[in-house]
Amino acid sequence: MRNLRLILAYDGTDFSGWQIQPGLATIQGTLALAIGRITGENVLPQGSGRTDAGVHALGQVATFTTESIIPAANLVTALNDILPQAIRVMEATEVPLDFHARKSARAKTYRYHIHRAAICSPFLTRYVWHYPYPLDEDAITHAARQIEGEHDFTSFAATDPERGQENEGRSNLRRIFLSEWRREGDDELVYEVRGNGFLHHMVRNLVGTFILAGKGTIKPADIRVILEAKSRSAAGATAPASGLYLVGVEYD
Amino acid sequence: MRNLRLILAYDGTDFSGWQIQPGLATIQGTLALAIGRITGENVLPQGSGRTDAGVHALGQVATFTTESIIPAANLVTALNDILPQAIRVMEATEVPLDFHARKSARAKTYRYHIHRAAICSPFLTRYVWHYPYPLDEDAITHAARQIEGEHDFTSFAATDPERGQENEGRSNLRRIFLSEWRREGDDELVYEVRGNGFLHHMVRNLVGTFILAGKGTIKPADIRVILEAKSRSAAGATAPASGLYLVGVEYD
Repeated sequence: MRNLRLILAYDGTDFSGWQIQPGLATIQGTLALAIGRITGENVLPQGSGRTDAGVHALGQVATFTTESIIPAANLVTALNDILPQAIRVMEATEVPLDFHARKSARAKTYRYHIHRAAICSPFLTRYVWHYPYPLDEDAITHAARQIEGEHDFTSFAATDPERGQENEGRSNLRRIFLSEWRREGDDELVYEVRGNGFLHHMVRNLVGTFILAGKGTIKPADIRVILEAKSRSAAGATAPASGLYLVGVEYD
Repeated sequence: MRNLRLILAYDGTDFSGWQIQPGLATIQGTLALAIGRITGENVLPQGSGRTDAGVHALGQVATFTTESIIPAANLVTALNDILPQAIRVMEATEVPLDFHARKSARAKTYRYHIHRAAICSPFLTRYVWHYPYPLDEDAITHAARQIEGEHDFTSFAATDPERGQENEGRSNLRRIFLSEWRREGDDELVYEVRGNGFLHHMVRNLVGTFILAGKGTIKPADIRVILEAKSRSAAGATAPASGLYLVGVEYD
């Protein structure tokens, strides 16, 4: 038996998220069908984590085991021939049998794109959050810095207990290595966050809360108070899915 | 009565082209409904020309007459609130009553994007022609230069006589002011063409023929022979709609 690791990029706009669901177009379900057509096996690829409906990926990682002897390089071409163009396999490699896309992950990086132009280009609307209103960029930068280090992120986690798989008996403690905003060009604000793990909706809830600091509704230092509250209701709204990208997953 | 001119950008992927058609989502039809909701009038905006299904616009121009007294600037906001995000009104201005988006046009510019990476990013697939095969870039550049000046473009025109509106008794003579390829970044080849008018499918048929020169199937100088043949069958295939953009329209 072989264990194969795929690196995937996808435009999540027209999918109901990563996780397979009957009757819905999902990334995992679409990928499972494509692998099945090539290997003749009924496999369910395991992702590094779920992405929600409308969320994109530049470097999602998925693994599956197979008896097929197809070389990894041929698998890239064969899968891309079958998959819809909104999902691309960028790379395939054979990995040790004990490698698991989710359990072996040590860090993940996400980016969130906010578009600031008065009118949002129709070519960006699927890929950004259009937010043309005034924002104090120093305040969002300062707010984002507050979450670096290890914290309990309960205030920024979706309150959906049935989505416990990714936490599996872990606490809501997560370590954030980097949390920063930068400007790209005239019209884009990009948030990048790298950490050892993320709770459901955590990046979108962080962005929605940093925006409160940018609007002056809260002070940047209030992020600490919100963390300490350990209550979802202490934080801001969930930012739209369209601006979020899973950039990559790191392993030992 | 007032004559209003709109500048429109749109992602054409999910539309059946510009021209209104019963039961289909078209740019003209969607715009007509939105204008109707604001003015209460039944108007059909006139474009500078049709764009086909899947073709995009950065600066399509459309005009319509109205009795409404809504200021042009408010019209931009009101239309963008109603229109789907794939269609944006970038600008609205009041123009003299004798101004007509198509008849008053003096020049148009189109761009065509070819993506050269081995695997096409899922974020570009709606907006380019993915062509990862070998191409002689000097040959396509040289081929493109052959059409500058005034020529009969019958060989590059779709053979659909019912689409005669844009020609209205004109010959197939058109003057091309600029026809050039340039590289953008590592992976993109961009063709830009500016002329006093374009026949149906002309830019896509030109691109499909320049590619033949890039593959070595024809010599760049053969473009002249193809022009002189005045026969659609002398030229190459029609390049995909996804790579084509109407960039802008010029008036006196």
